[in-house]
Amino acid sequence: MYKYYSLLMISKYPSVLLENAVNEFAKLPGIGKKTALRLVLHSLKRTPEEVENFGIALINLRNEVNYCKMCHNICDNEICNICSDSTRDPLTICVVENIKEVMAIENTGQFRGLYHVLGGIISPMDGIGPGDLQIDSLVKRVQNDKLLEIILALSATIEGDTTNFYIYRKLSAFDVKITTIARGVSVGDEIEYADEITLGRSILNRIDFKAS
Amino acid sequence: MYKYYSLLMISKYPSVLLENAVNEFAKLPGIGKKTALRLVLHSLKRTPEEVENFGIALINLRNEVNYCKMCHNICDNEICNICSDSTRDPLTICVVENIKEVMAIENTGQFRGLYHVLGGIISPMDGIGPGDLQIDSLVKRVQNDKLLEIILALSATIEGDTTNFYIYRKLSAFDVKITTIARGVSVGDEIEYADEITLGRSILNRIDFKAS
Repeated sequence: MYKYYSLLMISKYPSVLLENAVNEFAKLPGIGKKTALRLVLHSLKRTPEEVENFGIALINLRNEVNYCKMCHNICDNEICNICSDSTRDPLTICVVENIKEVMAIENTGQFRGLYHVLGGIISPMDGIGPGDLQIDSLVKRVQNDKLLEIILALSATIEGDTTNFYIYRKLSAFDVKITTIARGVSVGDEIEYADEITLGRSILNRIDFKAS
Repeated sequence: MYKYYSLLMISKYPSVLLENAVNEFAKLPGIGKKTALRLVLHSLKRTPEEVENFGIALINLRNEVNYCKMCHNICDNEICNICSDSTRDPLTICVVENIKEVMAIENTGQFRGLYHVLGGIISPMDGIGPGDLQIDSLVKRVQNDKLLEIILALSATIEGDTTNFYIYRKLSAFDVKITTIARGVSVGDEIEYADEITLGRSILNRIDFKAS
């Protein structure tokens, strides 16, 4: 009963404007009503200009966002900075789920090819099929650009494996090398704490010591 | 060094619009760059109308927010719903730090008087002195409205006690009863796990069993 009261705590707002702002914040993932109220009350302590900058930045992004015509990464022009970079290798394409992975791989500094952002992963449970992803445009790129290698860099989950397999089948008719990123024990991890499947894969996919 | 890379992960954004939105989100308390990116990418999956509603709700709140002329609670009019409710006792005022506490006390359903929102608590470490709070207007209310009782409902912290004492000194010249909310063992808590100070206070402030 006392727990019930604390749930009710945020049910009465003294102002409709306040209630609207809290409800809008609470629609974001991972933000409940209590956090939303905290963020809204913080906004009231900021200057009107600061709050306006915040709202406008988000509205502008949503209204003016562009996706690269080649790789479907977010960008400000027709073609993104990576695709238009002539120093990069245009014949190797790394297939990723979302722009977060592009940023992560870019920050390793280990990849100088181009990307292809699927915009998701095949997940029947979430109602996402191959048609919802940028797979057809990937096939077109392979067909038109005579690519040498496609690197599949999707999550090591059932959905990732399904998507890998679907893309592999779609591309198997073309003369392109298809690889996936290596799965193995993380750098810095101790062998005894690695999970069995990862450790097993890292043994199966062992590489020549001189090449490592 | 590898940790360093993961910190860098969010340093390169493919779009200026995206970067602006992430930076604005990351200015909110408790939201880092990674969470900000997650929230911004979620916003891109919403309709432009939904994102606009979110931004506008916050901007409208900030620009049009009103504070009650009497109790300084947030409200939509000159006087808030609580202060203008004629069924409530206008001679008993509960002094609280912020509107969150008003909402919490309202939801207990145990208080039928009015409120006075200080807008903070005396905290020299944060540079907040009595002049930054709505204490003078509280003194005026006591003076003009011939109040019967002031209930101090501030946090049981050093800052709360300091503020209580400051208000007590300011009001001691007036013929008004000054009380503080009871400190004691929480309902549902076991005695053996209560902290010593709380348990000590709850013994000192014991009440007649028949009155409980």
